[in-house]
Amino acid sequence: MPDLVLYIGNKNYSSWSLRPWIAMEAAGIPFSDRVIPFDFAAGNPAYKELSPTGRVPVLHHGKVRVWESLAIIEYVAELYPDAGIWPQDREARAQARSVSMEMLAGFQALRNACPMNIRRPPRAIDLPDGVMDDVARIEATWRDALQRWGGPFLFGPFSAADAMYAPVVNRFHAYRLTTDHSLLAYMDRIMAHPAWKKWEAAALAEPWTVPEDEA
Amino acid sequence: MPDLVLYIGNKNYSSWSLRPWIAMEAAGIPFSDRVIPFDFAAGNPAYKELSPTGRVPVLHHGKVRVWESLAIIEYVAELYPDAGIWPQDREARAQARSVSMEMLAGFQALRNACPMNIRRPPRAIDLPDGVMDDVARIEATWRDALQRWGGPFLFGPFSAADAMYAPVVNRFHAYRLTTDHSLLAYMDRIMAHPAWKKWEAAALAEPWTVPEDEA
Repeated sequence: MPDLVLYIGNKNYSSWSLRPWIAMEAAGIPFSDRVIPFDFAAGNPAYKELSPTGRVPVLHHGKVRVWESLAIIEYVAELYPDAGIWPQDREARAQARSVSMEMLAGFQALRNACPMNIRRPPRAIDLPDGVMDDVARIEATWRDALQRWGGPFLFGPFSAADAMYAPVVNRFHAYRLTTDHSLLAYMDRIMAHPAWKKWEAAALAEPWTVPEDEA
Repeated sequence: MPDLVLYIGNKNYSSWSLRPWIAMEAAGIPFSDRVIPFDFAAGNPAYKELSPTGRVPVLHHGKVRVWESLAIIEYVAELYPDAGIWPQDREARAQARSVSMEMLAGFQALRNACPMNIRRPPRAIDLPDGVMDDVARIEATWRDALQRWGGPFLFGPFSAADAMYAPVVNRFHAYRLTTDHSLLAYMDRIMAHPAWKKWEAAALAEPWTVPEDEA
């Protein structure tokens, strides 16, 4: 089988990149990653071969190109069906996919106001309308899943759903968005995971600062 | 196995409802649909039992609740693995998922400016910034897929990807957004599909008008 190569943006800010990266890393999938230049932009013809959308993340598997964070996760879950990327239980898997799609499609207010920023010291900011509605829905999602499936992660063992919400764990932490102790404990478990630690160390070592992502 | 019941908004305007409905109908999956009231709103506690997000579409399967259009499609594809909801070929399936996720996550300019409206007579409108970028990307997606996989639908036989783009077929038609003959022919094939015809007939019979969706 050809090698899996995941092209990503930087590790400090690129929330879309973190999702498939941590899903694959936590599941023990063999792959390499390549950080691509900042001037990578949708429609830049120089990158058409790299990514059909001109965006990252994009997974290369021989000649196959897979893009969109969750489509990459589904592809790898099919390649490695025993890696536990999705929960084993059918209902848990259905709920994990539902909340993962919610993340993919929504929460724009939160994502716009509170960019992922791994190196940011935790500090609250003034929040525009809509952000706390997003926070409340995510709190409910996490509480329901942790209670229903017993933890330590959303649907039991670490799964694709935790990966899809990993950037939100950083946002909740870096902007102090929740005070719920059970959710703070879940966030601590995510941020103590070896895959998280590996990503975090690489993010802290990056030299770049993106002013518009420094809220 | 318990019956599958898909709760949807109205059929004339509800683009998110059309996606799983036409995927299931075109694949011959046995299910029933129920149109829920217009005052259904996120967070309305009266609907918590119906849908964890307070939104439609939501699929009921016994006690299991599955929400988000594409998560519903994945769930049904697992229940009926031989129904051909996703393409058989692994690369085709990966690309079908990639473009389906792109649809789930993006194209906000197009979706905001050009609401799905089955009964709307085709007529161009003035388009805000960004809409034609979305149109160009969708045209490229459709062209690439039809050429690569040979038609008649995006990845050969009708699949989940065609279902995810079915509301866009209406938008392209109702607001005259493309002049590419190969894409107009694809749209005609979608709009001639028996599943489309069934949805369309039900939409035309609906009594409601939503002023903000009449662009």
